[in-house]
Amino acid sequence: MKKVITFGEIMGRLSPAGYGRITQAQSLNITYGGGEANVAGGLAHIGIPAEHVTCFPNNELGKAATGYYRQVGVDMSHTAYKEGRLGLYFVEFGAAMRPSKVTYDRADSAFANLNPADFNWKEIFKDAGWFHWTGITPAISEAATVALTAALKEAKAQGLTISADVNYRKNLWQYGKSVKEVMPALIAQCDIIVCGKADAEDILDIVPSGSHKSGWHDICAQIMARFPNLKKIINTKRGQISASQNTLSATSFDGSKVIKSDTVEISQIVDRIGGGDAFMAGYIYGNLVYGDEAKSLAFAVAASALKHTIEGDINLSNIDEIETVMGGDITGRLKR
Amino acid sequence: MKKVITFGEIMGRLSPAGYGRITQAQSLNITYGGGEANVAGGLAHIGIPAEHVTCFPNNELGKAATGYYRQVGVDMSHTAYKEGRLGLYFVEFGAAMRPSKVTYDRADSAFANLNPADFNWKEIFKDAGWFHWTGITPAISEAATVALTAALKEAKAQGLTISADVNYRKNLWQYGKSVKEVMPALIAQCDIIVCGKADAEDILDIVPSGSHKSGWHDICAQIMARFPNLKKIINTKRGQISASQNTLSATSFDGSKVIKSDTVEISQIVDRIGGGDAFMAGYIYGNLVYGDEAKSLAFAVAASALKHTIEGDINLSNIDEIETVMGGDITGRLKR
Amino acid sequence: MKKVITFGEIMGRLSPAGYGRITQAQSLNITYGGGEANVAGGLAHIGIPAEHVTCFPNNELGKAATGYYRQVGVDMSHTAYKEGRLGLYFVEFGAAMRPSKVTYDRADSAFANLNPADFNWKEIFKDAGWFHWTGITPAISEAATVALTAALKEAKAQGLTISADVNYRKNLWQYGKSVKEVMPALIAQCDIIVCGKADAEDILDIVPSGSHKSGWHDICAQIMARFPNLKKIINTKRGQISASQNTLSATSFDGSKVIKSDTVEISQIVDRIGGGDAFMAGYIYGNLVYGDEAKSLAFAVAASALKHTIEGDINLSNIDEIETVMGGDITGRLKR
Amino acid sequence: MKKVITFGEIMGRLSPAGYGRITQAQSLNITYGGGEANVAGGLAHIGIPAEHVTCFPNNELGKAATGYYRQVGVDMSHTAYKEGRLGLYFVEFGAAMRPSKVTYDRADSAFANLNPADFNWKEIFKDAGWFHWTGITPAISEAATVALTAALKEAKAQGLTISADVNYRKNLWQYGKSVKEVMPALIAQCDIIVCGKADAEDILDIVPSGSHKSGWHDICAQIMARFPNLKKIINTKRGQISASQNTLSATSFDGSKVIKSDTVEISQIVDRIGGGDAFMAGYIYGNLVYGDEAKSLAFAVAASALKHTIEGDINLSNIDEIETVMGGDITGRLKR
Amino acid sequence: MKKVITFGEIMGRLSPAGYGRITQAQSLNITYGGGEANVAGGLAHIGIPAEHVTCFPNNELGKAATGYYRQVGVDMSHTAYKEGRLGLYFVEFGAAMRPSKVTYDRADSAFANLNPADFNWKEIFKDAGWFHWTGITPAISEAATVALTAALKEAKAQGLTISADVNYRKNLWQYGKSVKEVMPALIAQCDIIVCGKADAEDILDIVPSGSHKSGWHDICAQIMARFPNLKKIINTKRGQISASQNTLSATSFDGSKVIKSDTVEISQIVDRIGGGDAFMAGYIYGNLVYGDEAKSLAFAVAASALKHTIEGDINLSNIDEIETVMGGDITGRLKR
Amino acid sequence: MKKVITFGEIMGRLSPAGYGRITQAQSLNITYGGGEANVAGGLAHIGIPAEHVTCFPNNELGKAATGYYRQVGVDMSHTAYKEGRLGLYFVEFGAAMRPSKVTYDRADSAFANLNPADFNWKEIFKDAGWFHWTGITPAISEAATVALTAALKEAKAQGLTISADVNYRKNLWQYGKSVKEVMPALIAQCDIIVCGKADAEDILDIVPSGSHKSGWHDICAQIMARFPNLKKIINTKRGQISASQNTLSATSFDGSKVIKSDTVEISQIVDRIGGGDAFMAGYIYGNLVYGDEAKSLAFAVAASALKHTIEGDINLSNIDEIETVMGGDITGRLKR
Repeated sequence: MKKVITFGEIMGRLSPAGYGRITQAQSLNITYGGGEANVAGGLAHIGIPAEHVTCFPNNELGKAATGYYRQVGVDMSHTAYKEGRLGLYFVEFGAAMRPSKVTYDRADSAFANLNPADFNWKEIFKDAGWFHWTGITPAISEAATVALTAALKEAKAQGLTISADVNYRKNLWQYGKSVKEVMPALIAQCDIIVCGKADAEDILDIVPSGSHKSGWHDICAQIMARFPNLKKIINTKRGQISASQNTLSATSFDGSKVIKSDTVEISQIVDRIGGGDAFMAGYIYGNLVYGDEAKSLAFAVAASALKHTIEGDINLSNIDEIETVMGGDITGRLKR
Repeated sequence: MKKVITFGEIMGRLSPAGYGRITQAQSLNITYGGGEANVAGGLAHIGIPAEHVTCFPNNELGKAATGYYRQVGVDMSHTAYKEGRLGLYFVEFGAAMRPSKVTYDRADSAFANLNPADFNWKEIFKDAGWFHWTGITPAISEAATVALTAALKEAKAQGLTISADVNYRKNLWQYGKSVKEVMPALIAQCDIIVCGKADAEDILDIVPSGSHKSGWHDICAQIMARFPNLKKIINTKRGQISASQNTLSATSFDGSKVIKSDTVEISQIVDRIGGGDAFMAGYIYGNLVYGDEAKSLAFAVAASALKHTIEGDINLSNIDEIETVMGGDITGRLKR
Repeated sequence: MKKVITFGEIMGRLSPAGYGRITQAQSLNITYGGGEANVAGGLAHIGIPAEHVTCFPNNELGKAATGYYRQVGVDMSHTAYKEGRLGLYFVEFGAAMRPSKVTYDRADSAFANLNPADFNWKEIFKDAGWFHWTGITPAISEAATVALTAALKEAKAQGLTISADVNYRKNLWQYGKSVKEVMPALIAQCDIIVCGKADAEDILDIVPSGSHKSGWHDICAQIMARFPNLKKIINTKRGQISASQNTLSATSFDGSKVIKSDTVEISQIVDRIGGGDAFMAGYIYGNLVYGDEAKSLAFAVAASALKHTIEGDINLSNIDEIETVMGGDITGRLKR
Repeated sequence: MKKVITFGEIMGRLSPAGYGRITQAQSLNITYGGGEANVAGGLAHIGIPAEHVTCFPNNELGKAATGYYRQVGVDMSHTAYKEGRLGLYFVEFGAAMRPSKVTYDRADSAFANLNPADFNWKEIFKDAGWFHWTGITPAISEAATVALTAALKEAKAQGLTISADVNYRKNLWQYGKSVKEVMPALIAQCDIIVCGKADAEDILDIVPSGSHKSGWHDICAQIMARFPNLKKIINTKRGQISASQNTLSATSFDGSKVIKSDTVEISQIVDRIGGGDAFMAGYIYGNLVYGDEAKSLAFAVAASALKHTIEGDINLSNIDEIETVMGGDITGRLKR
Repeated sequence: MKKVITFGEIMGRLSPAGYGRITQAQSLNITYGGGEANVAGGLAHIGIPAEHVTCFPNNELGKAATGYYRQVGVDMSHTAYKEGRLGLYFVEFGAAMRPSKVTYDRADSAFANLNPADFNWKEIFKDAGWFHWTGITPAISEAATVALTAALKEAKAQGLTISADVNYRKNLWQYGKSVKEVMPALIAQCDIIVCGKADAEDILDIVPSGSHKSGWHDICAQIMARFPNLKKIINTKRGQISASQNTLSATSFDGSKVIKSDTVEISQIVDRIGGGDAFMAGYIYGNLVYGDEAKSLAFAVAASALKHTIEGDINLSNIDEIETVMGGDITGRLKR
Repeated sequence: MKKVITFGEIMGRLSPAGYGRITQAQSLNITYGGGEANVAGGLAHIGIPAEHVTCFPNNELGKAATGYYRQVGVDMSHTAYKEGRLGLYFVEFGAAMRPSKVTYDRADSAFANLNPADFNWKEIFKDAGWFHWTGITPAISEAATVALTAALKEAKAQGLTISADVNYRKNLWQYGKSVKEVMPALIAQCDIIVCGKADAEDILDIVPSGSHKSGWHDICAQIMARFPNLKKIINTKRGQISASQNTLSATSFDGSKVIKSDTVEISQIVDRIGGGDAFMAGYIYGNLVYGDEAKSLAFAVAASALKHTIEGDINLSNIDEIETVMGGDITGRLKR
């Protein structure tokens, strides 16, 4: 099977044990995560060859992060190393009505200061069939946008399927260009995007035209009209009961109709960070293995739900577990 | 803003990790707590100047406890140190139908044996506007009662607002005097008390007169008649679904009418010890900042609910978190 | 009171902290467990004299396991030690829709290779009144079956009450004999068995005769007809809402009528391993202390439910906790 | 082999991990220890039947401590349980020039308030051949002294060998009697005592007469003259290089000559608490198994040295390890 | 006693447990440290009133760091909070021939971007008698240098004793000015400096003139000639046997003669970070309490040596422990 | 650079934290190790492309072990997975005179039962230049020997350098063949062996002929005479001061002369397991990078010494650290 390639920043993630606050913590657990690398991690874990391309500082933390993704089987062989720091984020886990809280300390990382010439995309994409990126990467720095643009050009040239989670984060985008200047040209290269209502407005200035009720079908139609290369627009929906309990579902629009997945309830959340990335990995898996949109969505929602029960950013759920949930069984019966 | 002063014993709190029992434990987590100091801690954490007055043994544990409250910003500068031991309590955390369990080992502590002359209340109350105590202090020892009596006299003289959680604990009161002999004279100094139905009977021999239905309005009226200095009687109500799930609400009586807060559901309890103290801190905050009884109650209930998601005795919830819950939002949506 | 004797293998149990997966773990918690020893542990913990008979490897792990059961008061004085290994099992704890997962590594253990001559049953049963075994033991090896057969013969001779959890595990039974060849002769010695519908078919080829609706009464009647020594057939029922939430109930058939317990909800599962063994310990306790079948069932279900809130295989719930739940109170109100 | 009986208080021992100070600690490790029980623990661990007699509070901590000693095989079947608290001590581990530090919180424990009538010494000593006590017990309380006196009387009557570590702790002895009033009558019952130069002066007012050089032989002669029942006086010597490095040796006086052990160097101390108790257990083992004074001393010193490498109060060194060191090999060669 | 004021950056310190490498770590312990704040911490811990002035990001980590120093009693009441990040450093602990390793991630911190106008030095120095700074602060940023310059001017005006550890770190000094441009004017304000041979050359271009043997006396004379305000030049010397074993000594030059301390051996290093800061705190303590240079040096070396046995940056050794080592006793005898 | 290939069993390694004994442990740290894989791990860590070939059970533990070696960069792409168990070993860490202790539970592992046909050596060796094995592999089972024999044949055919650590473990070799029957034919294929005096006798029946003094030169000459393909015989020497302190050195014989390394002292041992494997990795590195025998030996001894300060089986020392020690500097000076 051809490789899935992802590109983006990986950060160190530091969090107190249990439900502790940072002001109380005497130790912090360390794992590593990034929205794109988590997709590669989720895929590699269930047997899809996947490579993540990134830039790390050439220090202990960069080496530790490399090893972390290598451990789940992600090919890290085109990692660039340079002077600088590893971006960090701090997570406090909430419960009941107390939200989990993410504090970023990612400015001026080695990735933000990457040298686009360090990535030989022609060689990177040699055995690849799919390229996935997110809207976080062009938000980080000019250099990251340059590298991503080059990647997209080469991926297109080699005929890869291109997907993106457009994911607008307004706290990023500090380097002088706005999301609306940068993103449209990048989205134009894509076959598949994950995009919500707010993203459509924030990134593309697209709002539902007056007459439509919920408006989503209409928004999708406008997006597709603007980006003729696009084949699918995916939307995920989270029902927020409490910090400990959520529901998940998703829809896919193919230019004419909307397919909707079942809603899965997550009755006890262990760690929701990376839930969206697990969805994406599941959706790519579905495309590569099932080639059926409804099954792909169902697998993706099940994978995302299970991620909420896994510690760390990467979905370490196994195929059989995902397929059980995909089949509607959320009873979690003991396995011996 | 003028300081809030609290006075009472602080104990070491030892508990197994997770849901372990003490008979299984190879290590115990240590924090420090006391019903009055927790109020000062909760206030200091949200920016209200607060000082706690206590007596510690002059050993490592006394120093550790001093540092613990100092860390959240409580002024500990009038702490008395003397020979003796730190009172301790052991907590096992329950789940589902298994209750959490508190075992006290507090007898003969440095606090119980305090020297009332060690506290110069005139100086302690110099920049203060509020004094808070609880019914635990006069239950501990004659010496504690003498010190508290002196404190109340001076607080009254200096015109401070005086509040108390009357909190009858029948396992204490071992030093020869009964709660009914001691408490009425102390309550007589108060402007505000937290008092439940059982407390009213156990401490004041007040029961609802026959004709009244729920009886609470009637009990309050009797209490106020007896203590003309009293301006508010607060009552909190806990709905006990399981060790993992509770509901909270509160009422306030001002001599004529009862104001009732909304009921907040706590769907996953992390640590309920100190929930009542968090309520009191929230209520004092409301009085000092909002000056509106309904808002004060709502803030207090929200603060108390959030405390149930925090590890340790002190409510480390932030203002924005409390205000979100106070506004009715208990969905715990992730914050980035 | 006369001793309860149990006989069977004890394994080391290794599990990641929290909800971690084994592939992520840098440390594993170690406890020890076995379906029969857990019954002895649960009984000893609530004051019933209990002895467990087993065979351990004469190494550090065998000694550690001996100490583990000794710590809760189980008499381990007839433990045989020989060359070999301790059987192990690895547990990952699930949440919500993710199941807990048990991986066994128990082949060729010191227990499987035990020497039946090492157990002097005459002496072991000297002060005993009850003998309990499970269907796991004869599934392990020929040697284990020989030892169990000898034990049953002597227990019968000395007039002990004999109980068994017939517990068919199809992954065991690798030594050349089938469950249907071996078990009937062993069940024939019993006074009381725990047996489910599937067990009846898998072990005894008994299925409900056509006309009966739910069929359970009919299955029981067939079993009793075949094993005239049997006085009670117990069945437990687990309602599987999620990996975090279950319900429990049980029935008892005495040859004529079925008694049914109330259903207890477990709203937050901490560790469900050993829940069935806690039931059995509770049922034996009920028989010895109450001598009333309905109360015995209620106590057993309550004990089993509480076990789900306890870390480790052995039920460390106290009598007062079990009796509270048995009385219908699952509110888990804090105890001071 | 006849049992060794020990009698004395067991406390909970709480210590920060590593070299942490209590003022820094967020968790404390808990084990249990007592100077006499540690002797029983060390003996039981190497196969000598041993029982410890004590009084515990009937709460979770008392049960936990019972289980802790039961785990190493100490018979705890004559434990008395009563209202009260478990004595505690807090240990900070030092390194290099920083001493380890022990803080006691043992006043008013269940043991100190024991009821002497709870101990039926006649029955306790039934299968026993040796009774060991320490000077800590009569220092605790009048009640403890009464119980010990009764024990000694019965032990003498039944012809047991009686040993004591006279161990003067000046911070104890708070109950109104002095060590010099109480101890001589108790020492008079002994066959063997461990006693140092300072103990001889503090307890017995015995100092070397002027003409003798080192004085030890002379002190021993005076002690023996005063207590004609005494057969051996043992003295241990610790060379204090640093908190991380010590040396150990011992002497035995039998009325005429002093036998001296080799000096063993402990090059890396893990935990020295209980080192003296490990010596005593080793010496009793030597008496029971070797019956040779020089070998008993060598075994005792080796056992004590090894205890310094073991975490917790009880010496968990194995026979083969002790015999290797006793044979002069302290190279610690890896065992596979 | 008048307060000691320190000024400088505090960073978060993250390190694996034990001797783990960062590439292996699943959790990192978190403490907080800074070369100047550690001096305040060491002083506050032994009873000298001390305040640290710094700038923190107004996030969870800034609050945690504030609490950390508040816990040991440092006055943090003039802390400035602003947007930005907390500087971090990562520590791996070495052993034997493997060095400990510090990796900095401190660029662009809230402190580096501080606003000099946020510090009202007139008010800060109101009750102060001593001001201490280090060469790290002017190396961080222009803004930090401006703030420090203002502080020194005001300290001088108010007649405080001024000390500095000149501490040249060549990896800092990235903001466009060189150490040689900036430091001399700052040193000129000082009464006391800690300065080594390499510092003298790197910062001041001072090397020993040819004829002098060891040269140190001569270097000091040159420094004093250049900075007539200087009263003392202190030098510390570390003997590096291994990562686990060091020796320490120090000298003081007063313009005419060199006083030399004894050399203290540290036979087992627990954590050497902050050893120099502990020296400085000890030296200031000596000046304030003893007023004797030789005793001040001895106290400072003892304090520094003991810091090597303490976990974390701040010296938590107690007065009695320091005085014992100062008196030449490094045997670390157990304290009960 | 061409790859180094290693082949052999990897086991799970379980050990208590600190210096705990297994009988005390409530949790065990888990890492993974094997004498051959550790060589690949040590090489990959310092940049030499390395692949390990093994057979794992297809369960959670097999996957965890795969990830563990993948994390340090070992290519695991030819791992065979089959039914079965992962071999385990348990380690207790000793200190001072108490030895570390290894207990194996490795019988009947998936590796022992491997299918030789699962390894396509032609493809495995495609980009390889070196093959390393140890005497442990042929000791495990007939199947392992068959696979190794095939590997050696193909490695020889492809012209790889072949090295072996002959490493006789008498507790293995249980499958019916003796070391003397099996090993000579395997050694005959080697270019380089690590072999000690005892190995020479146990495996090859070679003892020094009478006239030679130390005998080692003579033994080597006999070995070389018997195996004409051999180019180097390496011997390592451990000086055993205590469990906490060792010395290391090595010699190399090339048919005519013996080269001897310096002796390196390890003053504080953290974890000595894998020390020999780190030596081998260092020696291979030296051959590939330096091509100088004396430097290779020095690098190997330095690498092995540093491994003793690293937690886990794999040497995670960095090149610069090894080269510093190789250059004679064991002072472990702090790196910033």
